[in-house]
Amino acid sequence: MAIADDTAVPVVRYTVTVRVEIANRPGMLGRVATAIGELGGDIGAVDLVDRGGRAVVRDFTVSVQDSEHARDLVAALNRIPGVRVRAASDEVFLAHLGGKIEVHNRIPVKSRRDLSLVYTPGVARVSLALARDPHLARMLSVKRNSLAVVSDGSAVLGLGDIGPYGALPVMEGKAMLFKQFGQIDAWPIVLDVHTPDEIVAAVKAIAPGFGAINLEDIAAPKCFEVEQRLIEELDIPVMHDDQHGTAIVALAATINALQVVGKKLEDLRIVVLGAGAAGFACTRILQRAGARDIIVLDRHGALHPDRPAIHDRGPKEWLATHTNPGHLSGSLVDVLPGADMFLGVSGPNLLPPEAIPTMARDPIVFALANPDPEVDPLAAAKYATVVATGRSDYANQINNVLAFPGVFRGVLDVGAPRISEEMKIAAARALAEVVPRRELGPDYIIPSVFNPAVARSVARAVARQAGKEGLALLRRARRATIHYL
Amino acid sequence: MAIADDTAVPVVRYTVTVRVEIANRPGMLGRVATAIGELGGDIGAVDLVDRGGRAVVRDFTVSVQDSEHARDLVAALNRIPGVRVRAASDEVFLAHLGGKIEVHNRIPVKSRRDLSLVYTPGVARVSLALARDPHLARMLSVKRNSLAVVSDGSAVLGLGDIGPYGALPVMEGKAMLFKQFGQIDAWPIVLDVHTPDEIVAAVKAIAPGFGAINLEDIAAPKCFEVEQRLIEELDIPVMHDDQHGTAIVALAATINALQVVGKKLEDLRIVVLGAGAAGFACTRILQRAGARDIIVLDRHGALHPDRPAIHDRGPKEWLATHTNPGHLSGSLVDVLPGADMFLGVSGPNLLPPEAIPTMARDPIVFALANPDPEVDPLAAAKYATVVATGRSDYANQINNVLAFPGVFRGVLDVGAPRISEEMKIAAARALAEVVPRRELGPDYIIPSVFNPAVARSVARAVARQAGKEGLALLRRARRATIHYL
Repeated sequence: MAIADDTAVPVVRYTVTVRVEIANRPGMLGRVATAIGELGGDIGAVDLVDRGGRAVVRDFTVSVQDSEHARDLVAALNRIPGVRVRAASDEVFLAHLGGKIEVHNRIPVKSRRDLSLVYTPGVARVSLALARDPHLARMLSVKRNSLAVVSDGSAVLGLGDIGPYGALPVMEGKAMLFKQFGQIDAWPIVLDVHTPDEIVAAVKAIAPGFGAINLEDIAAPKCFEVEQRLIEELDIPVMHDDQHGTAIVALAATINALQVVGKKLEDLRIVVLGAGAAGFACTRILQRAGARDIIVLDRHGALHPDRPAIHDRGPKEWLATHTNPGHLSGSLVDVLPGADMFLGVSGPNLLPPEAIPTMARDPIVFALANPDPEVDPLAAAKYATVVATGRSDYANQINNVLAFPGVFRGVLDVGAPRISEEMKIAAARALAEVVPRRELGPDYIIPSVFNPAVARSVARAVARQAGKEGLALLRRARRATIHYL
Repeated sequence: MAIADDTAVPVVRYTVTVRVEIANRPGMLGRVATAIGELGGDIGAVDLVDRGGRAVVRDFTVSVQDSEHARDLVAALNRIPGVRVRAASDEVFLAHLGGKIEVHNRIPVKSRRDLSLVYTPGVARVSLALARDPHLARMLSVKRNSLAVVSDGSAVLGLGDIGPYGALPVMEGKAMLFKQFGQIDAWPIVLDVHTPDEIVAAVKAIAPGFGAINLEDIAAPKCFEVEQRLIEELDIPVMHDDQHGTAIVALAATINALQVVGKKLEDLRIVVLGAGAAGFACTRILQRAGARDIIVLDRHGALHPDRPAIHDRGPKEWLATHTNPGHLSGSLVDVLPGADMFLGVSGPNLLPPEAIPTMARDPIVFALANPDPEVDPLAAAKYATVVATGRSDYANQINNVLAFPGVFRGVLDVGAPRISEEMKIAAARALAEVVPRRELGPDYIIPSVFNPAVARSVARAVARQAGKEGLALLRRARRATIHYL
């Protein structure tokens, strides 16, 4: 869940279903409906649950502002003589009740014969084959298509460090997206450990059963170390989605935005606001794709080698020495003049709309902070040629779900042991190409998250690139199984 | 997978499907069939795959002895002019191809509205609720019904230490049994760490997302330490099935066997052969259920406090000081005379049938070593009144699958934080009661693994016992959710 990973409008309507027992007297339904209306509740539906002799039970589905509002409503209803609230349920909580994912058996276990195939004694032969040649796990076990969505809960949504239990519903939701968009069997793994060493040790310990690892919502800077070490020490793909998911989608959007304004990445001056996980990854992928003039700002201003006190040996130090070729310094409004593109991965309302006209011709503004972007998209649109945000209620939504299902689908399909930088760029190019050339325009630089071609195209591009790099290892495993016929 | 956890006959018929391209000439099918028969292959079916002009493609499903035999068969077919083997597939491997389990979404993710409920922004409210009160994870997340089947692969089936990849197909198969028999969403977690400290650390790290932990196929003696520490340090149920699954089913069978022979557990002399994980757990549960006179033997003979060199501070030392009240010493045939029951959890053919008549009247013989029991069941039946084994091809199969799905179903249903000794005994009593009194007999002391009443009855008994002990914590979580309406 990066800054740009929000998948819907920032405020979901809060709907409660209130089950009310109402005395069977004329006018009572009207009194209840009036009371709800007077308190500002918006009745969506009234369903009859039970009609007894003395009382009628009805479900009122009501839009309210928040949980406080819902409680006030229930209290008000209970004060009406002849009315008793039996239960009140929030539809978001109802959707989560009992968990959102489950395990299914792909083959039946209904007879002795089934048991002998999938369990003992038949399974012993498969176990021996895998013990001899672990590569076969990619064919003959759940490892073929499984992925762990791993978080320690240290940077969940915009909520901060809310721990593994707080992270669990998000990781479970992410697992649903993997299934829905990538046909990947993802399982949420929320960790009750918090240092980089402990996180790395836990993920390495459980890695043999998984085909890939998606790191999620781990705070910077530890996310960099954790990802780097796991990539080096494991033989399965590991990706911190908050960084690279955002970066891939941002690059795809950039590629198409450049088509719209008729510029080239090589010639672009890009100002990146935000030097965290997403800012670092976006800068790196843009550079690898050809960008040469990027200026990155943190909350203290533009990063450059002469700026004192950047000695974190981490991404900021790297950025300070590998970006900003003109050694510009100062705040956003100081460095923005003449820039072709603004990429915000920071916080709300940090870009004054009136600074946009100081940019070069046909400004491109990506304001990806969520739920509130760096600049109001409507205000930005007055001055910028192309505007993109992380929000679903404006055109051009930069959403990680456009990248991660296809990227992992691609590496799982070919059994690639890692996700290379070239695969990420290939993913971005494929994503950009999903928008047909002739439909490309300022309001359509990135496809919808529900476009079924997205994950397919991304997966195909990633798999093809893996083949080019000699990383399509599943073919080797396929040949090996002939020994075990 | 304990000694007694085998779920089918020891030798599964090895069936290959051979796809053969045969020149389209008269008599060719006969030549192929004859060649298969001459090599000892037993043809089960012949399916037409494709009929071209010059060649016909057929699938022959053939029972063979082993993979060697299958390879010989393929070579022989390839030597026939006009015949070419295109592929040969082993049905056990085919059953495992691509993995045996998968993840399903319990609710759709097909619209913006769905996304906003199960993922952002709606999920943020659920995340905050769980961060505030982790108990709610038992209601509002996958934790409600999820279980990790954890193994380090150090004692898989009878195959020994074959590591995490070797263990994976077995743990995946076990996950299938959890789903089929207990409606539990189990996920295989195979560990690439091997010391007790590392195993405990890894399981504790991933515990927040799971409702329960089933330890499996971890070698003795480290299995004892790992289980004990996890029970103490986690707030979810942890059970090493190789120990307690076997023990629960053995106790259930004992309870019913005693009905058949008209004896009481309190008066019984029991000889247990095998002082490993299963032997230790069986002894303990029999004692807790009332048995007072148990003699346990390891490969060196009867355990008693005076025997030198039992200083492992582990189960053997405990057994030596808590069993064998008569301080008997010697080998199996030395201590067996006068015993009412023999319980073998050791290895093949260690009980000479002719020793059985030295036992007290109506001997009970449980020979649970798999695939080859401590005594041939037919030979034992000549002298013993009741005989049980771990095998499915004789009456009275002691199979762990009769216990673990119901036990974990029960604790998950009520949100119990651990599995108490009393719950295990309640599970055994419930399992024993599934066999109707009037049908009870020497050949029917334990129900079939496919009897749908088994898991239901065991789960109900475990849940009821949890309630008696004040461990049905889910009710508390249910009350708490009212705050988050």
